[in-house]
Amino acid sequence: MTATVVEHLMTRLKQIGVTDVFGVPGDFSFALNDAVDNDPDMRWIGCCNELNAAYAADGYARVKGRSALCTTYGVGELSALCGVAGSYTEHLPVIHLVGMPSVSTQKARRIVHHTLGTGNFEAYADMTKPVVAASAILTPENAACQIERCLEAAVARNRPVYMALPQDYADKELAGELVCAPEAPQSDPGTLAAAIDAIAEMIGAAQSAVVLAGYLIARLGLRQVAKGLLTRTGLPFATMFMDKTALDETLPGYIGLYDGRIMNPEVRDFVEGCDCVLNIGALWSDFNTGAFTAKIDPARMIAVMQHEVRVGHATFLDVEMRDVLEGLAKVLPAKPAKVKNPAGLGEPKGAPSDPICPDYLYPRFEKFLREGDIVMAETGTISMGLGFAKMPTGAEFFNQTLWGSIGWATPAAFGAAMAAPKRRTLLFTGEGSHQMTAQDIGQFGRYDLKPIIFCLNNDGYLIERLLCKDPKSSYNDLAPWNYTQLPAAFGMTDWYCAKASTNAELEAVMAKAETCGTGAYIEVVMDQMAASPLAKKLGESIQTLYSK
Amino acid sequence: MTATVVEHLMTRLKQIGVTDVFGVPGDFSFALNDAVDNDPDMRWIGCCNELNAAYAADGYARVKGRSALCTTYGVGELSALCGVAGSYTEHLPVIHLVGMPSVSTQKARRIVHHTLGTGNFEAYADMTKPVVAASAILTPENAACQIERCLEAAVARNRPVYMALPQDYADKELAGELVCAPEAPQSDPGTLAAAIDAIAEMIGAAQSAVVLAGYLIARLGLRQVAKGLLTRTGLPFATMFMDKTALDETLPGYIGLYDGRIMNPEVRDFVEGCDCVLNIGALWSDFNTGAFTAKIDPARMIAVMQHEVRVGHATFLDVEMRDVLEGLAKVLPAKPAKVKNPAGLGEPKGAPSDPICPDYLYPRFEKFLREGDIVMAETGTISMGLGFAKMPTGAEFFNQTLWGSIGWATPAAFGAAMAAPKRRTLLFTGEGSHQMTAQDIGQFGRYDLKPIIFCLNNDGYLIERLLCKDPKSSYNDLAPWNYTQLPAAFGMTDWYCAKASTNAELEAVMAKAETCGTGAYIEVVMDQMAASPLAKKLGESIQTLYSK
Repeated sequence: MTATVVEHLMTRLKQIGVTDVFGVPGDFSFALNDAVDNDPDMRWIGCCNELNAAYAADGYARVKGRSALCTTYGVGELSALCGVAGSYTEHLPVIHLVGMPSVSTQKARRIVHHTLGTGNFEAYADMTKPVVAASAILTPENAACQIERCLEAAVARNRPVYMALPQDYADKELAGELVCAPEAPQSDPGTLAAAIDAIAEMIGAAQSAVVLAGYLIARLGLRQVAKGLLTRTGLPFATMFMDKTALDETLPGYIGLYDGRIMNPEVRDFVEGCDCVLNIGALWSDFNTGAFTAKIDPARMIAVMQHEVRVGHATFLDVEMRDVLEGLAKVLPAKPAKVKNPAGLGEPKGAPSDPICPDYLYPRFEKFLREGDIVMAETGTISMGLGFAKMPTGAEFFNQTLWGSIGWATPAAFGAAMAAPKRRTLLFTGEGSHQMTAQDIGQFGRYDLKPIIFCLNNDGYLIERLLCKDPKSSYNDLAPWNYTQLPAAFGMTDWYCAKASTNAELEAVMAKAETCGTGAYIEVVMDQMAASPLAKKLGESIQTLYSK
Repeated sequence: MTATVVEHLMTRLKQIGVTDVFGVPGDFSFALNDAVDNDPDMRWIGCCNELNAAYAADGYARVKGRSALCTTYGVGELSALCGVAGSYTEHLPVIHLVGMPSVSTQKARRIVHHTLGTGNFEAYADMTKPVVAASAILTPENAACQIERCLEAAVARNRPVYMALPQDYADKELAGELVCAPEAPQSDPGTLAAAIDAIAEMIGAAQSAVVLAGYLIARLGLRQVAKGLLTRTGLPFATMFMDKTALDETLPGYIGLYDGRIMNPEVRDFVEGCDCVLNIGALWSDFNTGAFTAKIDPARMIAVMQHEVRVGHATFLDVEMRDVLEGLAKVLPAKPAKVKNPAGLGEPKGAPSDPICPDYLYPRFEKFLREGDIVMAETGTISMGLGFAKMPTGAEFFNQTLWGSIGWATPAAFGAAMAAPKRRTLLFTGEGSHQMTAQDIGQFGRYDLKPIIFCLNNDGYLIERLLCKDPKSSYNDLAPWNYTQLPAAFGMTDWYCAKASTNAELEAVMAKAETCGTGAYIEVVMDQMAASPLAKKLGESIQTLYSK
């Protein structure tokens, strides 16, 4: 017997390794909800709302490579859109499944709930197109083919895709021919050889070369390949902010975080002093380049991206990153690494009774990190501080550097923890961001996960106080929550919850959090303007502009 | 001196009565945030996240007629999109202001935060178009003209509009000519006379006629006009679900809520027994017509809508509802109303020690209502119960019957309370919906509002348990929150918070809630399947379909 549309969809998801589906159910999506719920090899993971579910799916994909999200028509999918767009910008293949009204309802242009009342049933699918790699409205006739097209796009382009399923089509048998997946993109052999030659030549001619290890290495599953190349060639490497832990910071060639002219002058001197810079999958965005203060002559730059290579001013299209890295490992000469690993943030500075200041906090956070930790760092002053901590072997630092949607980190930490429940998940968030999506910490308890959450309470949106004209502007104020009461209210009555305002208190609660055996929620209270060094410098440079 | 773009925008908002702006600040929107914050006649109302802010703006517009929302580029505006779409479908003029990156950044196609990284800076404005009546990206040259076009569209079409302002354009002086607002739509005099004649003729020829008083009466500010018409003509009127309290339920002609064949058979018999039905601004949507079981012969129906009239099978375009109602009041004969007001839900049924059942709960809720109350009723079983309660004079019942985005009611109640802080605001929500947006109850405390919140806890999405195949499906389960702890965690340590599981407990906590003088939060615990009659009947009819 032929499979139904929804059965075939589930089969194909499982075949590409997607068995966990984040979402919120809804009546137009019951067929999808039931298909997941009734399949012993799949798991429905409910979230409080669709945006949180999208962020959770994003966090999960960062750890496991790909993920799925399921929402209902209109109200559900539009609520998730900001999260899906974030996964698009940051290269995470989230497969978004949407339940639609039946085709008979659509044909009659009936005014049913969740519609605009205009009879246009495809408006939301159209609205979604700019933020997905492919999209389709499935029918029995097109499903076999469209599902392959969408899944292939998700995998090959490492971006979200969108598939909507009218409710009356879910249980219809596939009428279209079962097709094989479109072929994955392949390198053009001639171009590949030429690109590798050109790269090897530029590196060979250079007195000094450095690698920028970019986030795409991790996203494309190429950590082992890139590590092999760097280990063999002894090339030193830096990372930029978005790329942190794309490769282990304990590898011999690591020189530190490169942030243009704003931070780490020794790393900048090294990188900008080299006469060849090999960028492997890093993005030249504002917050990834110290607000565009990273200055590297394009003529001295090589960029190996997902499907193309640039060597100086020449571009080589249709070459895949994996093939380029593997090819380079064969032709570049073997050398030992000769650089010194960065020292990290050093000792926390301050007396035990002092209020907690950035000079104490971030070095203390660094000491707290363990091998293999999942570190979810929210956009804002907290990630700008933590980004400069040295990460242990196997620890991964996640931040939404390009999309920068505050609120992301809390559900993303939940998603990441679901993807790797045996690893330790640490969430570092400012309280303004946390307020956006805080309710989904309740899911940690529901799914028996034990994260350690640090919520930095500095009485408002600090990064905005630093960047706007008047730090006292009322729009940067927040409702005064009692943060340590949140876990119990959200159902985790056994969590360790505590508040620290001095360094001594911080020491005590961090020690307890590490050993309590339950989830832990730590509110770190700091002065309203106590910012990490990078945040402070960004603020100062903006204020200089304002005063001109 | 000529005004700047942002100054002119604020001036025009104030001139049309919009002085409160809901939102979340962001660096690309600082110019807008500052303009509101620095203007003594305007007020910034912060929310935890943009979707909640959009819902709050929606609730505010329901009470005050129009409202404003301000978000930042990309992450902010997309997060708000589901809420804005809801205001679109339900005819609420929410003016959405968005801060954009500077035009110099746009021209250079720089990869800055909150962009897709593709250099397309207008993608979000394009994505928004299907859910707004008008949109514009403002420049010094076009601002004067585009602001008028957008504001006029918001007012005339009673729908949201979208205006994006690049950050470097905000403080530039207006370069375009100051134009007057486009003229509001006017009735065509000949068509108007013909439409009124046709309506009067059909009503005059009818043995019996009834009015369906629709939500557009309230949205378009025509309550007094419609009330005048009904009082003069003595025509009996019913409302449908979305239209509840479009006119006072204590007016002499009110016969009750018409819900097709599902509920209130005596109202259905009356409405469907009349040989002329005058629909004033009601929508023929699924949940407004008892799932399309409302059956009225189009030949016997008159529909007076916002800009058009249908009389039987003839449509009269370009006639405004106000003009039609005022015209009808002059030509229809004066008669006294002769119907009996509906009795309401009667006495609560059950013993004091019984668990709370729908037969007790909804009659008890009805007795709790006072004149002038704002009743915010969340989509789900709770509004399906409360919708049949008789509302006191001046009380308004709000529900999102067409859009039906669960989570809406909690922030919408906050917005409504901000619009009318002297009225009593009651929020009735199921706990599944409440989890979506619960964090913004913190805003009630921050702005010194004292709502009474009823959170119905029946351990899952009950309406979905009723409508899906297997009520036990895991996707309808929720994280087990301790709801009564939420207000304190969100900052309201002085609120009265209590939980009721029996009728006696319910009596005690409702009495206390009414007199406590602070905000009150009541968790009503009910059996997992204890549904209001309408919800139960909808569920039964769906289950009959499944079993066929």
